[in-house]
Amino acid sequence: MSIRVGIVGISGFGGGEALRLIAGHPSFELVYAAGEGSAGSRLADRFPGIPPRLAGLVIQKWAPAALPPLDLLFASLPTGASAEGLARVAGSVKIVDIGGDHRYAEGWTYGLADVWPDEITGQTRIANPGCFPAATLTALAPLLADRLIEPGNIIIDAKTGISGAGRGGADSRFGYAESNENLLPYGLLKHTHMPEMARTIERLGGGSAAGLVFTPHLVPMTRGVLATIYCRGSATTDQCLDSARRFYAGRAFIRVTDKPPQTKWATGSNLAFVSYAADPARRLVIAMGVVDNLGKGAAGQAVQNANLICGLPETAGLEGAPVWP
Amino acid sequence: MSIRVGIVGISGFGGGEALRLIAGHPSFELVYAAGEGSAGSRLADRFPGIPPRLAGLVIQKWAPAALPPLDLLFASLPTGASAEGLARVAGSVKIVDIGGDHRYAEGWTYGLADVWPDEITGQTRIANPGCFPAATLTALAPLLADRLIEPGNIIIDAKTGISGAGRGGADSRFGYAESNENLLPYGLLKHTHMPEMARTIERLGGGSAAGLVFTPHLVPMTRGVLATIYCRGSATTDQCLDSARRFYAGRAFIRVTDKPPQTKWATGSNLAFVSYAADPARRLVIAMGVVDNLGKGAAGQAVQNANLICGLPETAGLEGAPVWP
Amino acid sequence: MSIRVGIVGISGFGGGEALRLIAGHPSFELVYAAGEGSAGSRLADRFPGIPPRLAGLVIQKWAPAALPPLDLLFASLPTGASAEGLARVAGSVKIVDIGGDHRYAEGWTYGLADVWPDEITGQTRIANPGCFPAATLTALAPLLADRLIEPGNIIIDAKTGISGAGRGGADSRFGYAESNENLLPYGLLKHTHMPEMARTIERLGGGSAAGLVFTPHLVPMTRGVLATIYCRGSATTDQCLDSARRFYAGRAFIRVTDKPPQTKWATGSNLAFVSYAADPARRLVIAMGVVDNLGKGAAGQAVQNANLICGLPETAGLEGAPVWP
Amino acid sequence: MSIRVGIVGISGFGGGEALRLIAGHPSFELVYAAGEGSAGSRLADRFPGIPPRLAGLVIQKWAPAALPPLDLLFASLPTGASAEGLARVAGSVKIVDIGGDHRYAEGWTYGLADVWPDEITGQTRIANPGCFPAATLTALAPLLADRLIEPGNIIIDAKTGISGAGRGGADSRFGYAESNENLLPYGLLKHTHMPEMARTIERLGGGSAAGLVFTPHLVPMTRGVLATIYCRGSATTDQCLDSARRFYAGRAFIRVTDKPPQTKWATGSNLAFVSYAADPARRLVIAMGVVDNLGKGAAGQAVQNANLICGLPETAGLEGAPVWP
Repeated sequence: MSIRVGIVGISGFGGGEALRLIAGHPSFELVYAAGEGSAGSRLADRFPGIPPRLAGLVIQKWAPAALPPLDLLFASLPTGASAEGLARVAGSVKIVDIGGDHRYAEGWTYGLADVWPDEITGQTRIANPGCFPAATLTALAPLLADRLIEPGNIIIDAKTGISGAGRGGADSRFGYAESNENLLPYGLLKHTHMPEMARTIERLGGGSAAGLVFTPHLVPMTRGVLATIYCRGSATTDQCLDSARRFYAGRAFIRVTDKPPQTKWATGSNLAFVSYAADPARRLVIAMGVVDNLGKGAAGQAVQNANLICGLPETAGLEGAPVWP
Repeated sequence: MSIRVGIVGISGFGGGEALRLIAGHPSFELVYAAGEGSAGSRLADRFPGIPPRLAGLVIQKWAPAALPPLDLLFASLPTGASAEGLARVAGSVKIVDIGGDHRYAEGWTYGLADVWPDEITGQTRIANPGCFPAATLTALAPLLADRLIEPGNIIIDAKTGISGAGRGGADSRFGYAESNENLLPYGLLKHTHMPEMARTIERLGGGSAAGLVFTPHLVPMTRGVLATIYCRGSATTDQCLDSARRFYAGRAFIRVTDKPPQTKWATGSNLAFVSYAADPARRLVIAMGVVDNLGKGAAGQAVQNANLICGLPETAGLEGAPVWP
Repeated sequence: MSIRVGIVGISGFGGGEALRLIAGHPSFELVYAAGEGSAGSRLADRFPGIPPRLAGLVIQKWAPAALPPLDLLFASLPTGASAEGLARVAGSVKIVDIGGDHRYAEGWTYGLADVWPDEITGQTRIANPGCFPAATLTALAPLLADRLIEPGNIIIDAKTGISGAGRGGADSRFGYAESNENLLPYGLLKHTHMPEMARTIERLGGGSAAGLVFTPHLVPMTRGVLATIYCRGSATTDQCLDSARRFYAGRAFIRVTDKPPQTKWATGSNLAFVSYAADPARRLVIAMGVVDNLGKGAAGQAVQNANLICGLPETAGLEGAPVWP
Repeated sequence: MSIRVGIVGISGFGGGEALRLIAGHPSFELVYAAGEGSAGSRLADRFPGIPPRLAGLVIQKWAPAALPPLDLLFASLPTGASAEGLARVAGSVKIVDIGGDHRYAEGWTYGLADVWPDEITGQTRIANPGCFPAATLTALAPLLADRLIEPGNIIIDAKTGISGAGRGGADSRFGYAESNENLLPYGLLKHTHMPEMARTIERLGGGSAAGLVFTPHLVPMTRGVLATIYCRGSATTDQCLDSARRFYAGRAFIRVTDKPPQTKWATGSNLAFVSYAADPARRLVIAMGVVDNLGKGAAGQAVQNANLICGLPETAGLEGAPVWP
């Protein structure tokens, strides 16, 4: 039985990756696609490699009132742009919101799928985590759950590829010539992903995350997020690795590694890689998390969440190994 | 029923991509992997994102005498390194040779799968085309078959990403710092891919290809091949496009486009994109072909060939849409 | 004695590179800078590494009537945007136009500085060659002058880094995520650089260039142009190299090499590298030219032209060796 | 009067950049070059853009006993390879050691040129700082000197382009295909640059640096180092910026910026950019330092040190503005 699926926001990178994953999903049938910048085009005009059965689907302008009958809707809109429209359709369709408007919002479940799958199953409105939170929280969750680190004393130095920041036409900062061979910190002390990380750390760790420090960096690569996280705690490296192995035992998408993880290990997949290095003598624990910002950091986790709320196997459509090199 | 599969040459990029495709293939079960540089490692040590069911497979040193019972063997060895070993096992296992040693060799079928699928079906030893020939010949085949261009007057200006040339440890020319922001022609007037292109052009085009000119270039990107091919003929652009659309009607992996093709359209897939621009007043036809050098240019076409010789659907394991951006 | 210099179009890449070269020039004093996108900013706000003595210069909106007294003006405006404004100031200031509006225009000298330096000396209005012509014509000039190739039978397959195409904010095609790992042909059979190349080939080669074919490609790198040029002629490789060595004897910025040239050899410099590979049996000559599209392909050659028309040593301010890697 | 200069280690990236800067230096005359991998070649064979006056210099195998009469020697050898040889020549020639063997060694002055220029003037043996220390210590020095941060509580999250790690032929980790689109931490809790940073922090800051944490990362770009440094202190952002502006008043190569610095601002130059963001309520100070790892992080600072010990203007040969984009 196929599930009728729509995507809103297909002009963006997150929406495009959702399209790729839905196109290869065994139970999803794409019947609706909307996008601001590409409305009126056929899918094949925007995505030349799309399978022929989807090539002729015409991209619509997003209009909640004109939504066809759907079982499931993926939304991937800029922050601030999704709340009103999704409110109008939320009663009639399951929604996974890849955008940022509903994280920890009333009536929505925060979809940190590898940590809280049971909370997600059976829900109808999922707010997908941001890309930085996906990398960071996946690495921290076991340590927080096992009380190996202090929730109030966490410094996140995060790095993202440029598809995590936006599209080239929007801003000359994302132009190739400007971005290539360039590395920079941005949004110091005030990034929009801070609140969802603090909230989640508090839920996981049993204490205030008021001391949280988060510094994102833009790295000259297309995809990938690495979070290098400096924590206080007395655990050894092995205790941290064991904690993560127990916490994620049987989970399909998490790889606990004893080598520092590399972003390219995850490219094109829904995998997250976590590792740890600790120095108990200095009460230092370094946690590291790697995801593809468009995979586990956006559309991959969104499909995982959709599988959970649709009663499908969690890994459906997500089994592809990463593309390397 | 699953088909028992082995890979020889898993340390190279072509072998690694074969592994990725085999891991996702519905009918192939990987039971053997051999590689010079990685013998003794578990697959997961070399490919951290490999599915857990394959993680523990130990990479062997390639030894024809010790080959376990297999139905199908993919070989991806450096030029000159495969002939002897494969000769010893060729009687007992179907082989797709991704390497260059058996192209147009006695007893081997040249596996240009989108052009001559019927010749491949039922064979047991397939010599997979090189990455430059895959891009070039796919673009030229319809024009040659329809006699729209002269086989004796073809100039191929080809460009490849660096994974098409070799691995970093082998040669400082392929180092990141040396290669990034660098573009160069190489192998002028004497590249190893010349003979298989000339032979195929002659088979397709009904005349000598003695005038063939081929200039490869190294481009600072990981994957992708573009061949820009200058031909003599009086056809219009539309006639060329029509020729290709007819020639490839119903073929799953070829996309005929009226816009110039881009290498990133094909990344991670087995697709080939072809397009044409012609100026009949000057008897000029420009043919363009794009492939992923590790996809249609190596492991993708190899799996397609394997499907054909194993009696499977041609697209099995190859349906994934390209990874973009 | 210092020469009072202005730049119009400092927001673009060509204007920015002109600024860098002028800042390091022993005889030029920058007293005026205008730019559409950056008017009102101090130079240091846009160019954080600019020497302190220039940091406070405020970028103006380009207004010909308000031009301060200058000896020399560099203009680097989009095609179509410079003609009117420059006409109003051309009587009172020497001009080097890096933009495309005055190439082979009435009253302007085409500034192919390494080929025709004597024509440029003493002039007041110089139209600087485009980046593709700079690479192409530098490689072809000796062969045409020595009648080693046919002017009517030339195919130019040219490749440029993305700074040669435009800035990121202008067009999502030039975005990092969209452009990285992507290679494409564009502007087939109709690029704006065609006429100046045809005109120059005819001047140099004694015959019609009506058969000229030119295909530009966009390569994922910031800087660099390579032209690979397919010509008809019976010369040997050595004859071509000798022709170029004689033609450019004593010229400071041309390097004739027997290895295929690489774009990174030229980065940040005003150098051009030319090489040749020929197969007399097939009457084939391949000429190759490499420049930095912002150096010899734009601002570097502009400063060279400015030196010539100001009576300065041709190499003033241009002695810096390329930046490698 | 020209100073006779030699370079040992010209095959490496640091030695190559020293060559570029020496070639453009008004008082240095290169008379000797030695390099393991390139001995026997002419300079022009390895550095095609080198000025003609240096093109014919033949690269030697490094042999201390055969060193010609020199005033000044730059050494850029792998760690462990320079001590013995330099000891044999140290009595007869001024030395700047770009390599790591003599930092804080007996008889050598640590050449943090922008911080302690007066200590360097008049010396004869200078140990040039590493690239990570150059970025880190330049950012920290003012805060430590003004006691705005605690020396015992510093976390350095540092990122380098791949030329800072090594050459491609040496290690497949530095290959283009392996490194492109890849970001990784490495050398956790044990990098070789730790001791010189701890020593310098203690000298500057009046207290133990035993708590120092340093995590380097490899970023897919050729050049550039960014250190993001998390410190404890109650200063405001403005107090930090003021501290740095006072500390570096009149220093030619340091730019204090109120925007987060970007690596590309420094490319090809000897500049360092420092900035700060503080949150006194949390006693948090984030210091940021950017250098070109081959400029201020290696050969640029080496030439600056050489200028100081030769009694030349500190900026001689180092005035070139950064290459952007």
